[in-house]
Amino acid sequence: MDEFVSFIPLGGVGDVTKNMYLYEYKDQVLIVDCGLGFADETMLGVDLFLPDISYLLKTNKKIVGMVLTHGHEDHIGGLPFILPQLPNFPIFASPFTSALANEKLKGFNLPNKVNMVGFEEGEKQLGDFSVSFIRVTHSVPDTSHIFIKTPVGNFYHGSDFKFDDTPADGKKSDYEKIKKLADIGIDCLMSDCLGMEKKGRTGSEMQLANNFFEEMKNCRGKFIVTTYSSHVARLNQIIEVSRKLGRKICFVGRSLMKVTDVAKKIGYMKLESGEEVLLEDIKRYRDNQLTFIIAGSQGQEESALSRVTNGEQREINLREEDTVIFSSDPIPGNEVSIYELIDTISERGTRVLYSPVTKNFHVSGHGSEEELQQLISLTKPKKLIPIGGALRHMYLYRGLAEKLGYKRNDVFIIEDGQEVLFRNNQAKLGRSLQAKNVYVDKISGEEIESFVLRDRQKLSQSGVVIVLSEIDSSTGKIIGKLDIIVKGVSLSYDSKKLGAKLFHDLNKILSGRKGRITNWVHIRNIISQVSERRIFKDFHVRPLVLPVVIEM
Amino acid sequence: MDEFVSFIPLGGVGDVTKNMYLYEYKDQVLIVDCGLGFADETMLGVDLFLPDISYLLKTNKKIVGMVLTHGHEDHIGGLPFILPQLPNFPIFASPFTSALANEKLKGFNLPNKVNMVGFEEGEKQLGDFSVSFIRVTHSVPDTSHIFIKTPVGNFYHGSDFKFDDTPADGKKSDYEKIKKLADIGIDCLMSDCLGMEKKGRTGSEMQLANNFFEEMKNCRGKFIVTTYSSHVARLNQIIEVSRKLGRKICFVGRSLMKVTDVAKKIGYMKLESGEEVLLEDIKRYRDNQLTFIIAGSQGQEESALSRVTNGEQREINLREEDTVIFSSDPIPGNEVSIYELIDTISERGTRVLYSPVTKNFHVSGHGSEEELQQLISLTKPKKLIPIGGALRHMYLYRGLAEKLGYKRNDVFIIEDGQEVLFRNNQAKLGRSLQAKNVYVDKISGEEIESFVLRDRQKLSQSGVVIVLSEIDSSTGKIIGKLDIIVKGVSLSYDSKKLGAKLFHDLNKILSGRKGRITNWVHIRNIISQVSERRIFKDFHVRPLVLPVVIEM
Repeated sequence: MDEFVSFIPLGGVGDVTKNMYLYEYKDQVLIVDCGLGFADETMLGVDLFLPDISYLLKTNKKIVGMVLTHGHEDHIGGLPFILPQLPNFPIFASPFTSALANEKLKGFNLPNKVNMVGFEEGEKQLGDFSVSFIRVTHSVPDTSHIFIKTPVGNFYHGSDFKFDDTPADGKKSDYEKIKKLADIGIDCLMSDCLGMEKKGRTGSEMQLANNFFEEMKNCRGKFIVTTYSSHVARLNQIIEVSRKLGRKICFVGRSLMKVTDVAKKIGYMKLESGEEVLLEDIKRYRDNQLTFIIAGSQGQEESALSRVTNGEQREINLREEDTVIFSSDPIPGNEVSIYELIDTISERGTRVLYSPVTKNFHVSGHGSEEELQQLISLTKPKKLIPIGGALRHMYLYRGLAEKLGYKRNDVFIIEDGQEVLFRNNQAKLGRSLQAKNVYVDKISGEEIESFVLRDRQKLSQSGVVIVLSEIDSSTGKIIGKLDIIVKGVSLSYDSKKLGAKLFHDLNKILSGRKGRITNWVHIRNIISQVSERRIFKDFHVRPLVLPVVIEM
Repeated sequence: MDEFVSFIPLGGVGDVTKNMYLYEYKDQVLIVDCGLGFADETMLGVDLFLPDISYLLKTNKKIVGMVLTHGHEDHIGGLPFILPQLPNFPIFASPFTSALANEKLKGFNLPNKVNMVGFEEGEKQLGDFSVSFIRVTHSVPDTSHIFIKTPVGNFYHGSDFKFDDTPADGKKSDYEKIKKLADIGIDCLMSDCLGMEKKGRTGSEMQLANNFFEEMKNCRGKFIVTTYSSHVARLNQIIEVSRKLGRKICFVGRSLMKVTDVAKKIGYMKLESGEEVLLEDIKRYRDNQLTFIIAGSQGQEESALSRVTNGEQREINLREEDTVIFSSDPIPGNEVSIYELIDTISERGTRVLYSPVTKNFHVSGHGSEEELQQLISLTKPKKLIPIGGALRHMYLYRGLAEKLGYKRNDVFIIEDGQEVLFRNNQAKLGRSLQAKNVYVDKISGEEIESFVLRDRQKLSQSGVVIVLSEIDSSTGKIIGKLDIIVKGVSLSYDSKKLGAKLFHDLNKILSGRKGRITNWVHIRNIISQVSERRIFKDFHVRPLVLPVVIEM
């Protein structure tokens, strides 16, 4: 019997974001996660990119299902772009993850919905894969590891986590379940490795509460915190301290309000009536009665915090008595924007606390070396594949495994698109699939998620048209034909004919330009504009056009 | 008697680099430092910028002299660009600083030379200013603070420093001299503030020696260190450890070789014959007999370290047994380039040590809060002006001064171009002079300094022509007339006529373009090309053309 399982990362290895992984058995594909990639400051004008799913589009295999590990954008943010391109299949996720994902999909008129799975539920059968969700701690509620049982072998998909034994929400990682599953035998552990640069253990979320209390007690003005929107445990800690000290909470930023709405709806955030104040009502309170939680901790130019700092948010005026806390760390590449923001806040004379001035108000959601080692000890895998990190983290992870007695070739350091085959207790490299850069249209708005809100109205009126093109970066020419995917647009159209017309329109413009493409935003804008014009001319509707460009 | 001294930073406050400060008394101007600014990754295509000296070009006052505090590029790198635009005046600096500066000026055919001042020498009289050099510790040899005595009051110019009581070269800060000068009375302390984000004291340079020793002892392959080229004390520590462990030293990178040549010439770096190996001779040694010191610790694309990592430096092949150490910290904005470089090194399987994996191989050259406080205690100034930091550092510095009992208005937080007037024991804000962005031509080459080498040949053949223009960024039009400064070009020309011709040539091209200027590199390239063409046409010579553009 020559059966095998193959593991293929379409995104998520070697560059941290845009997580998406395939597990294949016979003619069946199981997908884990469907994330967005974030561009750093050096990628001019490009905000977001997607995993390259061209293999999934071409394969004859059947997608039997998708599971989502947790609700961060780099694990679920690709759903609205990618689901319309794929056939229907069941999707499963933990309560908070599924609530966030479904909120994101609202308005896209897709048949797919993300089904909720409780951690106490048994295995889910997806084709020949049987999957279990294991609760772990991280910086968003209900983060899961996934145990994947197949006829050939068992896999532990251990993406982003830390082992925090005093988590702020009291929900610890389920060590017992990990051990029980490990007893069945684990052929390969796919493990988070982002924290490998730090020795020892990552601090517990609980240690922050007292620091917030002391700082808030001494603050004579507004108490302002910026942090990651989906870090509900952090938000709850700040709410709890504010409650003790008699401050009302005001959320600022649409992404933040969206996440907190979801958290409140499923009971993960408890605010009594009167404890939360809307921005338009804050004038009824003195400054020292208010805590503001404001989106924009990465210094994003359009974020709520930038608007407040630059005086563009009329209702909030930074004063000397106020305190601003960055309850976050810079994502590499964002330093310059963050420090500029801090400089501008300093200029108001406002007290501003951030790393490196203090480490008191943030701990990472990723486990350090000791916790990564602990997961290896718990799962006792035969092979290991570091995921969710850059190359330097992956090589450090291999070093850790070697220290624990693994042989160097027990650890696979692979790139996006590189298949690993598991057969007869052996593992080896398989095919190397295409994993190109797929950029999506620049989305402005205060944070990644807000475009969904902004575009929903348009969507609910006219639906969405995705224009997929492959463009030769050296000539700017379209390669092959365009693919058009229409969802929720009430028009009778011939996809091939529309594709051909758009191809003609676009090539007329693109073939005029000369030299290597350096500004992809501009190219995507052209595609948007030309497509909108053509669609309006032929069908008299104005759907949202999302250009997806594959750079060749 | 209504005499006053005015202090004007032309660069160096609010953005760390391009340090240049004026002290004025009656019709006399004393200049402190003449630095370059470095662009971060977000400034597209712009590498370098200069302090705006338009005030100096217009004023009727007399420049009585210039003093340089230390040999870093952000304090002396502007000399070749700025000196040709100014009349002659005496320049003074410490031994190493003057040696580096004169090396930089070689080939520019300028009448100015930087005069060496020993720290033990008495006051220098420059017009009515009397200046003393005080030895302090920093990350380049012979760093000075400057005590400036005037008929109106005394100033302590305390730029970049730390108080390291066990410096690697044994040359401690001269606390006695500071105290003695403080006894005369100090009206204002201009102080470094970059280290304000860190509590306590910055570690001593000496603590690194043992860490290098342990790591080198265990290294079975090549031992590779990258650090700041001018950090001679660090280089000497690495040389000393290599000597003990029987490794030869090989310097890679032109900027590094230039600095070490200067250091060897004045006896600051001692390498016995046979201890240093040239790149072309390394094949005569085994890997474990070699220590490489390679330029490029900030991940610069064209640097020696990038070339080695990318396999473009034939002679050096990274192997698994090698160790690469980043003996440096990322300058904010360089993180992405540095981490990419580290990823690529990891991919070779090479051991690579960097922050945050370890803090064992670098300490900052800037004092932390306690050392900055110590300078205040030593100098007992009446007023304080933080310099050499971003706004956030300056406001933190004000907080420190307030903690020490100063009143808030004893501390001046000013921007480039903002004058502070000192009169009758009082200080107040004066004029606000223009301090625009002045970009200089993009310079490629492995590090900032290397352009001098590359261009020297051209210079020594044909001299230099500086073309100064003010360009309206919204229209791309030249404002007013061009200024032409010619040095070392053997031709008889009429500066006005040449300026008018160039203006005509350039406007013909620039007026054709539309919209806001976003690519200044392109504009400067146009100015270079057009000027070179015109000069060759009219005079049949090919001098080096340096376009200096003031963005309006």
